[in-house]
Parts: sequence; structure tokens; C-alpha cells
Amino acid sequence: MEVENSNDSYFKSYEDLQIHKLMLSDEPRNSAYHEAIFNNKTSIEGKVVLDVGAGTGILSVFCAKAGAKTVYAVEASETYKLAADIVKENQMENIIQVIHSRIEDLTSAQIPGKVDIIVSEWMGFYLLHEGMLDSVIIARDRFLKPNGLIFPEAATIYATPCSIPSIYKYWENVHGVRMESFSRLLREEAYKKPLTEKIPPECLISEPEVATWIDLREVTSDDLNEIKLRHVAVSNKVGTYEGICLWFTCTFPFPRGPSNTEPVSLSTEPDEPETHWKQTLIVLPNSMNVEVGSPICYDLTIKRSTDSNRRYNIELIMLDPEEVQHPEFCRCFMTKCILVNAMLEKYARGEGDGAE
Amino acid sequence: MEVENSNDSYFKSYEDLQIHKLMLSDEPRNSAYHEAIFNNKTSIEGKVVLDVGAGTGILSVFCAKAGAKTVYAVEASETYKLAADIVKENQMENIIQVIHSRIEDLTSAQIPGKVDIIVSEWMGFYLLHEGMLDSVIIARDRFLKPNGLIFPEAATIYATPCSIPSIYKYWENVHGVRMESFSRLLREEAYKKPLTEKIPPECLISEPEVATWIDLREVTSDDLNEIKLRHVAVSNKVGTYEGICLWFTCTFPFPRGPSNTEPVSLSTEPDEPETHWKQTLIVLPNSMNVEVGSPICYDLTIKRSTDSNRRYNIELIMLDPEEVQHPEFCRCFMTKCILVNAMLEKYARGEGDGAE
Repeated sequence: MEVENSNDSYFKSYEDLQIHKLMLSDEPRNSAYHEAIFNNKTSIEGKVVLDVGAGTGILSVFCAKAGAKTVYAVEASETYKLAADIVKENQMENIIQVIHSRIEDLTSAQIPGKVDIIVSEWMGFYLLHEGMLDSVIIARDRFLKPNGLIFPEAATIYATPCSIPSIYKYWENVHGVRMESFSRLLREEAYKKPLTEKIPPECLISEPEVATWIDLREVTSDDLNEIKLRHVAVSNKVGTYEGICLWFTCTFPFPRGPSNTEPVSLSTEPDEPETHWKQTLIVLPNSMNVEVGSPICYDLTIKRSTDSNRRYNIELIMLDPEEVQHPEFCRCFMTKCILVNAMLEKYARGEGDGAE
Repeated sequence: MEVENSNDSYFKSYEDLQIHKLMLSDEPRNSAYHEAIFNNKTSIEGKVVLDVGAGTGILSVFCAKAGAKTVYAVEASETYKLAADIVKENQMENIIQVIHSRIEDLTSAQIPGKVDIIVSEWMGFYLLHEGMLDSVIIARDRFLKPNGLIFPEAATIYATPCSIPSIYKYWENVHGVRMESFSRLLREEAYKKPLTEKIPPECLISEPEVATWIDLREVTSDDLNEIKLRHVAVSNKVGTYEGICLWFTCTFPFPRGPSNTEPVSLSTEPDEPETHWKQTLIVLPNSMNVEVGSPICYDLTIKRSTDSNRRYNIELIMLDPEEVQHPEFCRCFMTKCILVNAMLEKYARGEGDGAE
């Protein structure tokens, strides 16, 4: 079958095409943006929208269908041609202007005045890695009206200790065969770079902790250079602690006007439907058995790479629970926390008695 | 975390390691071999086994556990080291000999005498592509006793016309957005090489046809140079004909002795649990609407590549149903088949009347 190949002019590689296929087939992602944009119809109707990193242009078409007056679909890669085709296919040429440019290079001739709304699907693995939040920040600072809306408006990274059966437990007994020699190799690979994998929710062994919360209306690029979390987690089951599971959620603006709906959230949490981001796993060199109440203490640093602005490195340092200060009301089984909790409870009871 | 990297000595690349992970995590594959080997315990106990392309050695350990006296685990790649580690880990060094060699280069010093059983997981995509059946044939001809067993013993390739929503239907309406411009690119890519994808069973639009049945006890390498199928399929639903879906099944030897079990089968059919082989899709340049009874005629040729013995090319030629001879009892809606069927039925009724 001889067919003229025009892919080369749209995508740098076969992989590029497959990545767009993966993203556009990600139902939780598509649904969240679609729902968020249509729930906010009142805020979008008649307004000017800037789509940062428009890709194939799907979000721009959502906004045009939701009633936007003008949508600037800005895309730096050759994919802009495809966005232009899709805009035509949906007969939105009068509303959507596809602009082939980096955000940094946009001129006021291309975007005259300020925009009311920014939409962008900029999220990378564990939110930041290979994402493009910096471009959204630049777009916001240069082009968004004061009090303009950003879709999404906020993002949160969560962390929690977990077990990782795909590189540990599974290999202890593969139909009766011990394959520790193989899983050791998998773990060695995993130390080099975080795993992107769907982790079953039952593998989480503690309550999630917020590593960072990002308000897109205010965050600066400098804020994104380094994210640090010290977490004193408490195991809530008998299990094996094998690494840290990271994921993120994004929340969209609160719908204005008569509709009484909640803001839409896009969650990549383990117990939510799988997205192409899956979860990110930072693997420990050795697994540790934990009981209900075992304290698990670590410092997690997510740090911008010096090689590339869009890449991040993760550092995980295990801490000695004896040497770390535990939070108030820590529910771990260490004597100091049991004593503090007993005192706090006694105090609470005393207060209660006194009030009667 | 600094960890000595020993993967390099076992695998050529990170991808190699991931491929082994994928295969060893393929439950239907593992289960079929495990079940087939243990159902045939009576035939394996005290016998000599040759594992062709042993990889990580899992099948060799299965055979040793099922009572084999000696297992030769022959692996040409550096993965043989890992097989040796896994053999040790399972304390099978006295039974399993890991041999680092290509099958072609094996000497009678390495394999003295003949073996009773050959096991091998040699199957590639749509059975043959990047598989290693030729090595199994060489091993059989050189080392297997007359009437020795081969696991698996037979294999079948099936073909059936299907629709392929992942590159057609899905893109007509992605949350209200037409993305035909994108799906056109996906289809252009798909013409270049067959897709490996899980196809939902409801996408098959006709009964499966056997493209070839291979008896591993008798097949020769020459038999595998070219497989040709002419198929006059009849659509069993109103739908869209967008390509040909290929898959395979393998069957294992019939258990001997007192056990009264059926031979085990490993199936990669669309309605069976997903394997890492998934299904293979040959995509048409254009889709065709079909009705119940529409004849779909094609010639399919699976031909060994001249570049590499282990690679195959697929040629799909659409045929005009008017010009192709339909099989007896063809259930398509064409006048000639309706007439023939009516005559055959009349004849059958006549016979029935006469017999009463």
C-alpha cells in the first residue's frame, strides 16, 4: 500500500505522534478539561482565551465551543500545522488563531491587548518533570488580565510510602520460581530514574502527604526550582516499604454564575482511573518491613536540573525516626509519640471535665 | 543512591531488560507453560529436556520442578548469566545446565545423546515475526528423539476482518471535537508497519479463518518462508471494515498417563486475557461500511523478509467479491451464493423427504 507520508511535516518522529495519541486517548485528562471548560461557560462566553502549548488544538476547540470570542492557540512545534487542520475541520477558523511561536517570542502584534483566560495542559510526570509550567507563568505575566482565569488554577503534588510489587514481591514466586536475581536488576535500573507505573491503591502504606501546593495565579518560576518535603509517615498496615509514590492533582476554576457545581479536579491518584501520567515511584535500595504504626521518615527533594529547565531530579533521603521531630498528634508507635498523645488526651479530657 | 550497575553484563540495553520484564509478567503465557508442563509430569519425570532460547530460564526451572532428570538451558545472549543465577537461586544446579550457545553451534559434547523433550517459548508477533521457530526446528532435527515431545506442539495463525476504533472511530468525536486530521496521520503510520494492539472482541466483524496450522513435529524452515491465505469472509454485523486482525494459539502435548485432562492451549485471541503479543492489525487505506452478509475477500501473504530470517512482511490485497470464487455454503448476500444455498437446501430437503 503506497501512501504519501505527511507525518514528517507534523511530527519530528514516530514517537511524537504516539505521544499525542496517548495524550488524546487519556479519557480522565480529556474529560477533566472538557468538563472544567463547559462548567465555566459563563466565564468563557465572549471572552479572549490563550491556549499555551496548544498541541493538536483540542483545548482551543473546547473553548471555542464553550463560546469564546477569540482563542489564540500558541504552539512552538511543527504540530501547529495539525492544530490548524483540526481547527478547520471543526470550522473554527473565525474564532481560533493558530500561532506558530514559543511563548517567550510572542509579540503584541500576535496577541493584541490582554486575554481573559489562559488554558494549558502543561503537566509532566509527577507534575513538573518535562512539563511546561514556566511557559504558563510567562504567558500569565505578559498576557493575562488581572483576575483572569487559568485552567487549571492550582496543582498539588502528593507523596506517600508504598510497596512496589512489580519490582519486589512479584519476583519472589513466579509460578513457584524464585527470580530475585531478575528483580535485583529491575531495582538497579529503578535507582537510576524514577519508574512511571500504575501503582495499585492497596500498595500505599500510609496517608498521602502534600509535597507542594501550587497556585497558578501567583507561582513564580523561582518557586519551582526546588520543592522540599520532610515527611514523618506512619504505616497503616503490615507490609513492605519499598519506595515513595508521587502523584498530582489539578483543580480548575470555581464555576461562576447560576450553576452550583463544584470545581473540576483532574487526579492522578492511585485509586482514580489510570491516566498516561500513571504514578511516579522513587525506589529504595532495600525494602523494609513495617507494622501498623511504624514511623517512616524521609526528606524528598524535587530539584530543577541544571542541564535542562524542564527536567527535574529527585533526591530521597531516609531519616532515622529517633532523630527526626515527629508532628503533633503523630500516631506512630514510638514511645515518645505514645506518651505525648497520652498527655494530650489526658489534657483534652481534663478540659472536657472542667467545662461540664 | 549509588548502586553498582550490573545490568550491562546481562542485557544489551535497558529495552532488553524491559522486554524480559514484560514477558515474565505475562500471566497467560506463564500459566500456559506452567500448566502444560505440570499436566505432563508423567512424561517429564526422569527425562532429558532441552530448553531452546532459555532466556531467564523460567521454563527450565518448571521442567526441573516437574521431575526432569536433566535440563539443557541453551541461551545465545548474555542473558544466560541471569539464567545461571536463577538456576542457583532455585537450587537446581544439579539438574539444569545453562549453556551459552546458539542452537546451530551446539556440539555433541555439550548435549550428549538425544533429548526426550524440547521446550521453547519462541513465538513472535502474529506468531512468526521476530520469533525463533527456526531454532526450534534445528534443535528438533538434531537433538530430539523420535517421538519426543515438543512444548508447544502445534500453532495456528488466525485472521479476521475487523474495525479498528483506535485509529478510526475514536477520532471522529473526541468530546465533540473532530480529529480526522490526526487519525489520518495514525493510519499513514499504520500502513508502514502492522499495529500491535489489543483489539476489543466486538471489533471482529466476521468468523476467524485459519491462515495456517503448524505441526512442530514436522514443519520445516522452508514451510515458514511464505504463508498464503485467500479468505472470503462474510460480515456478521453492520459495521466498518478497517483491517485484518491476526492472532495465534499454541497447543501443548496431550497429557499421558492416568490424568484425564485436556491439552493446554495458549491463546492470544481478542476475547482471551491480554498477552504481551496482543493482536496484530493490518490496516486498510480506507474504511468500508459493511452490512450483515457483506462478502469481504482478500489475499493475505505473510512472507519471510529477505533482510532478516526472523522478520516477516505482510501483504494484504483486497479482492473483488464478484471475481473471487466463494466457498461452498457461503453465507454472503450475493445473488450467486443465495442461489447456490437455496439449491443446496432444496437438495438437502429432497434427500430428507426421500429418506423418510
